[in-house]
Amino acid sequence: MAQVLYDFTAEPGNNELTVKEGETVTITNQNIGGGWIEAQNSRGEVGLVPEDYIEVRECGDDFSISSLSHPALTTTAGSSTRASVASNGNDPWSVWNTDPSGGSNNNWASNPEGTQTGKNAPDPWGSHGHPQAYQGPAEDDEWDDDWDDMKSTGGYVESESGDSGAMQRGGAHATSMKISLNKFPGFSKSGPELYLLCKQFAKGKDKLPIYTGEVGPVWSYPESQLDCIVHFHTNTVNHRYKHFDWLYERLLDKFGSAIPIPSLPDKQVTGRFEEEFIKMRMERLQGWMTRMCRHPVVSSSEVFQLFLTYKDEKDWKMGKRKAEKDETVGVMIFSTIEPEAPDLDLIEVEQKCDQFSRFTKAMDDGVKEILTVGHEHWKRCTGPLPKEYQRIGKAFQNLSTVFTSSGYQGESTLTDALTAAGKTYEDIAQMVAEQPKKDLHFLMETNNEYKGLLGCFPDTIGVHKAAIDKVKEADKLVATSKIAPQDKVTMGKRASTMSYALQAEMNHFHSNRIYDYNRVMQLYLEEQVKFYETIAAKLRQAHSQFTTM
Amino acid sequence: MAQVLYDFTAEPGNNELTVKEGETVTITNQNIGGGWIEAQNSRGEVGLVPEDYIEVRECGDDFSISSLSHPALTTTAGSSTRASVASNGNDPWSVWNTDPSGGSNNNWASNPEGTQTGKNAPDPWGSHGHPQAYQGPAEDDEWDDDWDDMKSTGGYVESESGDSGAMQRGGAHATSMKISLNKFPGFSKSGPELYLLCKQFAKGKDKLPIYTGEVGPVWSYPESQLDCIVHFHTNTVNHRYKHFDWLYERLLDKFGSAIPIPSLPDKQVTGRFEEEFIKMRMERLQGWMTRMCRHPVVSSSEVFQLFLTYKDEKDWKMGKRKAEKDETVGVMIFSTIEPEAPDLDLIEVEQKCDQFSRFTKAMDDGVKEILTVGHEHWKRCTGPLPKEYQRIGKAFQNLSTVFTSSGYQGESTLTDALTAAGKTYEDIAQMVAEQPKKDLHFLMETNNEYKGLLGCFPDTIGVHKAAIDKVKEADKLVATSKIAPQDKVTMGKRASTMSYALQAEMNHFHSNRIYDYNRVMQLYLEEQVKFYETIAAKLRQAHSQFTTM
Repeated sequence: MAQVLYDFTAEPGNNELTVKEGETVTITNQNIGGGWIEAQNSRGEVGLVPEDYIEVRECGDDFSISSLSHPALTTTAGSSTRASVASNGNDPWSVWNTDPSGGSNNNWASNPEGTQTGKNAPDPWGSHGHPQAYQGPAEDDEWDDDWDDMKSTGGYVESESGDSGAMQRGGAHATSMKISLNKFPGFSKSGPELYLLCKQFAKGKDKLPIYTGEVGPVWSYPESQLDCIVHFHTNTVNHRYKHFDWLYERLLDKFGSAIPIPSLPDKQVTGRFEEEFIKMRMERLQGWMTRMCRHPVVSSSEVFQLFLTYKDEKDWKMGKRKAEKDETVGVMIFSTIEPEAPDLDLIEVEQKCDQFSRFTKAMDDGVKEILTVGHEHWKRCTGPLPKEYQRIGKAFQNLSTVFTSSGYQGESTLTDALTAAGKTYEDIAQMVAEQPKKDLHFLMETNNEYKGLLGCFPDTIGVHKAAIDKVKEADKLVATSKIAPQDKVTMGKRASTMSYALQAEMNHFHSNRIYDYNRVMQLYLEEQVKFYETIAAKLRQAHSQFTTM
Repeated sequence: MAQVLYDFTAEPGNNELTVKEGETVTITNQNIGGGWIEAQNSRGEVGLVPEDYIEVRECGDDFSISSLSHPALTTTAGSSTRASVASNGNDPWSVWNTDPSGGSNNNWASNPEGTQTGKNAPDPWGSHGHPQAYQGPAEDDEWDDDWDDMKSTGGYVESESGDSGAMQRGGAHATSMKISLNKFPGFSKSGPELYLLCKQFAKGKDKLPIYTGEVGPVWSYPESQLDCIVHFHTNTVNHRYKHFDWLYERLLDKFGSAIPIPSLPDKQVTGRFEEEFIKMRMERLQGWMTRMCRHPVVSSSEVFQLFLTYKDEKDWKMGKRKAEKDETVGVMIFSTIEPEAPDLDLIEVEQKCDQFSRFTKAMDDGVKEILTVGHEHWKRCTGPLPKEYQRIGKAFQNLSTVFTSSGYQGESTLTDALTAAGKTYEDIAQMVAEQPKKDLHFLMETNNEYKGLLGCFPDTIGVHKAAIDKVKEADKLVATSKIAPQDKVTMGKRASTMSYALQAEMNHFHSNRIYDYNRVMQLYLEEQVKFYETIAAKLRQAHSQFTTM
């Protein structure tokens, strides 16, 4: 059962349900995706309603954001040590694995919700998560607890001028929905053509130049890199999880065809280890923000800047409405891209695309292997191994107690030493159990974050493959007079532009990857060294208490 | 099927079987103990035959012995680092556990073969052994391979002058058997009285003085302590395992009531890990010899000296015959003991006995706990743990391979470092798997040796408890005229002598124990420190290859 927060009028033929503020409905399917849920009203009518219009009580956390602008990498280094992850619950590669010949269309078709599905999975890390954080059952949380407050103070919908709030929201979601429909089942037929065959691009849009750097095509990087610290439970600028979700949806719509936009960390799981889980979610949300800030295209986008520079409700709502009306979304993002290098021929375009496809697939396998062994290692380090060291420690101490009872003179040096050795092994047990949080955790989080990022590539690369396929069909389309000969030339040029975008994005990915893995491996090994050195020092101390008589 | 090597004439009423040299018999029970096996001849008659008279092919090893005499502890320290063990396969304490009120008689009755049974158990270490050494099935080995040679060159039986060889051997074994029968089922009724009520002790026997040292009653220690190195496959003085077995039997018969004589290391198990097993058996045989050498009473006994100072067959056989004729065996050993301190009253005697009984039982539990956790730890260190480190190492290396395929510039520093880190974890895997042999092995062996020693205490303490019970009955025996009033006084004095012997032995045990555990713990912790320091150094090296760009 859920409460309707705002009026919503169904659009005919869209399987939507008209609801009124204050009405009670039964949620029949929460996993629709795209900002919609399926609900049933008291008359038994079933249909889709915008998620935001319905009050589903969720876990409440306060977020606030401080954004900083400073020279690249220095402070980013600081923030990226708080290893952070966005994750995908299902495996977008799976179709490619089982049907390698199927190409991008099958991929889209078999995985219609793309990276979105992960968001609603109860366990976002699948079998790769940290066991502590996942053992509690998923419960209704109270994430939305002062979504109510928003409503009482007007929220960010009703006070909008122009169309009625309901229509406005409906409209906004309709836009969102249109993109989703473009991207999903119908995509392969209509998707890339939107851009490849577009007669005229929108004027005055911010252009995205692609320069030729040392490593090949690169995005235009700002002189100072943005950083952003997400505060927890402070009262400066409240950006609730819903706002993050809204930002994610906007970024996915706008950039998803060109840039992997990782899912937000899951917001639903709570339970026995709630505190630890909330901490990890914060870490991951921070990681997501940091990654977005590090992206030159995303971080300088109007919608992202709007999110970061929130000043007051009025500005926010204006900006929000503008962002939701943005039509340069989906494949149309390529219309803003301006490479400085000469056009590539289709063979090069296809080679690059295939190379990136192979690499991201292989890295996805590599990352998952690390997550699997890391997860096993985590379990051993927090389970049987410390128990064993504890038992060794106890056995030494028990023997010491027996020896003490001998009544023999000159026993105490040995028994004191044995007790100390036993306590040392108990200390080691505790160190072993606590170590994964100090090192393995960050290795896991970084790889989890990359797993999330890599999970976006099948979608992104799928757009490019579909475009290449379309360009390959161009001769036939010209022959059957579906397109003009000049259109074919345009398609080739635009496929080249897409390829530059993909190359710039891959170079960005590689550069970040090299930085991230260097950092996390350094941190991991540093902590491992400390761990083993501390154990050695403790044992050396225990050793010194025994005598050779 | 087995071949009879020498004529043997059964003694009537002893359930023995007469056999002739060259006859073929079927072994129906090899686990009789006391040097006997049960066999069936071709006419279907079944009976006991001396083990030595029958050729059972066993595993062949050559032993030789160098004995050294030198100042106490300095060289013993050297030899005791080659941690060494004799073991008992079954648990002589078990009766005490299940029936604590049963006292020594029950103990003997329920465990009629005493410490001997361990020798014939297929797995001498039970569940506590090192897994590598035990996984092979027990097979017929060729221990006895040149027992045949002995036979062809006359062996050490036929050339003996005096009685016929067969009768001599039969006689010798009859002596051994008499002791066994005294000690076992019939013991509690006749055992301690042999000594307590003996009218006159044999003259001219070597006396065993007990002095009052700082820690209480102590044996007389030689000025220089004997040490003995058992060589393997050399040709100086060949003492075959059978000779060790003969020595063990003599020592057990002669000193077993006063001094725990641990069983020899098992000689039967062979199989997949034969080489490792033979190495461990050598180590344990060395440990057994070292422990016997360290014992002031055992090491200075005629039979032990005979064994060590073997010069030629003739001297050996003469000494052997003399030893086998020794009548100061079993409880009669106490007749040679001469404490310098005044007699103890029965309450003190009983208190001491109970105290030692409690201590040895408690230590047995403590030692077994260490063996159990050590065994678990051994399995983990040689099984799942290195496999996990290997998988971590492989995962890093696989990721490195993927990264190498990126085609991105400036990749090699990271990929080289990742590969090195992966190899480091593979190194660590190997170190983890090999470490138990360097440290845990010696901790296990020392505790195994003590398990064997402690397993002898129920027998030794049982003798004392039976004597105490007998002294308690003295008044009743006087009243019913079974003994004279003077006999009661004699019994009390002799129980006091026995108590001094037990106290001297316990003080010897404690002193050795403190030395042994100090040494083995030092060795263990030293190796553990090295292990963790080496890992830390390797990881530090791996760490240094990553850069912060």
